[in-house]
Formats: sequence, C-alpha cells, structure tokens
Amino acid sequence: MKAKKDRVDEALNHHLSLEAGYPETLIESIKYSLFSGGKRLRPILVLAAGEAVGGSEEPLLPFACAMEMIHTYSLIHDDLPSMDDDDYRRGRLTNHKVYGEAVAVLAGDALLTLAFKLMTGPGMNDDLKPKPVIKAIREIADAAGLGGMVGGQVVDILSEGAAPDQETVNTIHEKKTGALIKACTAVGGLLAGGSEQEIEALKSYGGKIGLAFQIIDDILDIEGEKEALGKDIGKDQEKNKTTYPAVYGLDESKEKAVILIKQGIASLEMFGEKASFLRGIAAFILMRKS
Amino acid sequence: MKAKKDRVDEALNHHLSLEAGYPETLIESIKYSLFSGGKRLRPILVLAAGEAVGGSEEPLLPFACAMEMIHTYSLIHDDLPSMDDDDYRRGRLTNHKVYGEAVAVLAGDALLTLAFKLMTGPGMNDDLKPKPVIKAIREIADAAGLGGMVGGQVVDILSEGAAPDQETVNTIHEKKTGALIKACTAVGGLLAGGSEQEIEALKSYGGKIGLAFQIIDDILDIEGEKEALGKDIGKDQEKNKTTYPAVYGLDESKEKAVILIKQGIASLEMFGEKASFLRGIAAFILMRKS
Repeated sequence: MKAKKDRVDEALNHHLSLEAGYPETLIESIKYSLFSGGKRLRPILVLAAGEAVGGSEEPLLPFACAMEMIHTYSLIHDDLPSMDDDDYRRGRLTNHKVYGEAVAVLAGDALLTLAFKLMTGPGMNDDLKPKPVIKAIREIADAAGLGGMVGGQVVDILSEGAAPDQETVNTIHEKKTGALIKACTAVGGLLAGGSEQEIEALKSYGGKIGLAFQIIDDILDIEGEKEALGKDIGKDQEKNKTTYPAVYGLDESKEKAVILIKQGIASLEMFGEKASFLRGIAAFILMRKS
Repeated sequence: MKAKKDRVDEALNHHLSLEAGYPETLIESIKYSLFSGGKRLRPILVLAAGEAVGGSEEPLLPFACAMEMIHTYSLIHDDLPSMDDDDYRRGRLTNHKVYGEAVAVLAGDALLTLAFKLMTGPGMNDDLKPKPVIKAIREIADAAGLGGMVGGQVVDILSEGAAPDQETVNTIHEKKTGALIKACTAVGGLLAGGSEQEIEALKSYGGKIGLAFQIIDDILDIEGEKEALGKDIGKDQEKNKTTYPAVYGLDESKEKAVILIKQGIASLEMFGEKASFLRGIAAFILMRKS
C-alpha cells in the first residue's frame, strides 16, 4: 500500500508542478489540502482495480490522481463555514482557516477542474483507448455530481436536525461517499481493459466497501481517538448528522460494516490472486482507526 | 441569434430534465441561475464557430450547453459573500440570497461537474470522433481552471484595493473572461472538424472578442443603465476592482475595445460567408447595453 501511495504522491506532485506559474496563493492552498496525510484510498483503488483485470499501473495514474483531486475538493468545500464549518481536518487547520474562504472555494473549484484536465492529458491518450477514456470520464462526472457526491452532500446538509431514518442515511452514504469509491473501482477496471462482467464485479465490490467505509467513519466519530483521527470526535452527534449509528445503533452498524466488507470481498471471486490487493484494502477499511 | 439561443435553452432544459429525481432544492437552485435571462453568448459562440468550419449544429449542442453551465457556475461562486458579495444579478437576487450559501456552493459544484458529464454523453459520441472530444474537454478544463477562469478570479480577488496596472488587468481579463470565450470558439471549430489553421484563426478571434467583452463589461459598470444591466452600476469602483477604465481611462478603454473587435473580425477572413454569424456576434459585443 505504501508503494502505491508513494507513486500516487509522486504523480500528484508531477501534475501540480505543471501548473506552476499560476497564482501562487492558490497553488499553495491546493497543495496544503492535497498533501495533508490523506490515505490515498481512492487512487489506490483505481490502481488495484486495474491490477485485478491484469492491467498495468502507469496509464491509470492520471485517473488515480484525478480521483484524489475530486475527493480533496469535496473535503475543502464540505469544511466551509456555510457547510460543515469545520476548523480541523487531519490534525491541521482546514483550508479556509488558513487561506480564507474565497481562496478555499476557488481551490476546490480548481481541483475539480484540474481532475478533468488530468483525465484528458496529452501524454496519456496513447496508452489508453479513447472510447473507454470518455466512458470513464462520464462515470466519474456522474459519481461526483448531482446523482452522486454533490447530491449526497445536499441531502446530508438538508437533513441535519431531522429525525434520521434508514432510507435517508443510506441515500446520503451511498451518494456522498459510496458513489466515488465505486467509480474508482469501475474506472480502474474499465481503463485497464476489463470485460463487462469484470467491471460489474468491481462495481459491486466498490459499492459495498464504499458504504462500509462511511459507516466506519460514523463509528469512528463516536469511538475513535482524536489523535489518530486528527479531528474532534462527537461532531456528528453535536450537529445532529444523519449517521448509521444514529439510525441503527452502534452494534448493528458494526455488524453491517462487517457484512458489507465480506460481501465486497465475495464479489472478487472471479479475479483469483489478482484481486488480493483489493481484498487487503477491504480488510484495511474494516480495521482502520483513522 | 434568437433561434440559436432557443435551441440552446431547449437543450439545457433537456439535459437538466435527465437529472430530475436528484435533490429538488439543488435542481431548483441550478435552474434559477441557469435560466435567468443570460445571453447564451458562450454556447452560441460554440455553434457559430462550428458553422464557420462547415459543421452542423446538433453534435455541438452538449458542448455548447456545457460552456453555459461552466459560465453559470462561475457566476454563482463569484457572487458568494466570501467573493464579490453580490446581492443582485440580472435583475434578480443572487443564488445564495435565495437558496443560502451552502446550496449555492453546491449548485456551482454540480454545474461544473454536470458540464463534464454532458461532454461525455452516451448519445453524443456517435456523431463526434472520440479523439477530438478528449482534446476539446482538455481545452475546456484548461480554460476553466488554474490557467484560466479560476486563476483569473484569484488574481482579481487578491488584487482588489491594490494600485491597478496594465499587466494585472490584462491577466485578469484574459484569464477570467477571455480564456473561456476563446475555448468556446476553439472547441466549436475542433469538434466540427476544422483544420489546425482554421482552429488557430478561431482562437485568435475568440481571444480578441473575449478581452473586448470584458472591457465593455467594465465600461458598462460605469456608463451602463441599471435597468438594462439588471444590477447596480459603479460596483467595480466601490470595490476598488482592477478594471480597464481604472488603468487606461474610459476613452482609451473604448478605443481598445473597438480595435480588438476589428482585429477579431479580421481573423475570420479565411472563412468567408460562413463566418458572417461570428462577425455579427463581434458587432453585438461592441454594441451591447447589458
């Protein structure tokens, strides 16, 4: 995981260096959030999904980086005073606390836009077939937009304080977190030349572990350690957020997470040994403390 | 122009209807800003540039709509309290004044993301060749991002109150407004199968009229009529914005706008009659009162 993370970090650095020369404050603000100790789960999933269908890593790297950029943009915007109003993330002040709200909004906008630039990079298209590239971009735009991440964030914000119910919490989690994680695995398989059946299996895996990831996030907000998480715990309850524990209780939430991880791993059967990395990620998600 | 505008409006409506079923408040907020009497200059430029190289309109429509979505997202974010803090646009309350800041940020995010979804639409790729589509998306992401619109907005915000100089105002105008307008003409020509030489000519035209457009915007903020503009005048001066009149004075700004429009029209020579629409748009930009 460390090796993959390093390659992602290196590629992120490379792509950002190409943007040097543009407003320095903005680049700084982008780097501040992009290199703040993230786990790089999403880009690693892209690479690992490509591996599962027998593809090589190199051509997938720009897409892997793009997913991390989209994820980072969403965190910057989510933390804004008008949204979750968070002062800390990963043990450091949030972007708008350091650079001001205007630059934080624009850093997010720039990251989202840059993600799509990466996915259409001139150095990349020789390795990848153009039709799957277009399909992958669509998949990602869909997962990041109204029907996915942004849509989920809206439901999340509008449901704050309302009586939490199963349908709402599942909608929020699947859209806000699950959709992008699912897109990572789908796109990795698609670009690496996976068959339709393989891509479906990867999507099924991504959907399950994506939901589990968010449930565990909810649990960590109750039971986690502040130091490991790099942020205050108990914020969800304080804000009356619609979380899994709030709807299902802590014990049932834990059970559900375990079941989802098992189901995710079960989806990988057809890949045999080639999916051992994806299985490891699933286990990592269940065990994570931060 | 009216006929093209109607077709763009119809296509925008169509694409948004496909997103129905997602959070209603967000869709409403998007529609509020997307259908607020915009001139549809950018999408019309995409279509007219395609026309100049002998292409048909239909396959370009999703890209035309995407450009209007990107433009609209930038307006919503620019108006935010942390940015320009504007209460009115086009004679109506700004998005965040009606829907709140959180939804306004997310409506912008959703529009930007949706633009890239449109450009990779499944119904579209049969008409267009995949390689130019990828190139066009890159061109647009570049123009909308750090090196273009977002970068220009950062310089604009950070330069407020500083002594205005020629380099800064040209950087802001070319990036913040010019880049996206230039991308419209480039992409229209590219997707409609224009030669490299034709695309270069269209870019030259787009660059000139794009800069002229923003200079005239600055002039209208001083000499325009509130009713026609749908917003208060004199806001730039009030905020110490870096504008053309602030740097060059009103008379020289007007002269420069006229020269740029003439240069833009001169770039179109090779297209003959097929560029008459583009010439008309250049004239419209010079004469506009709103």
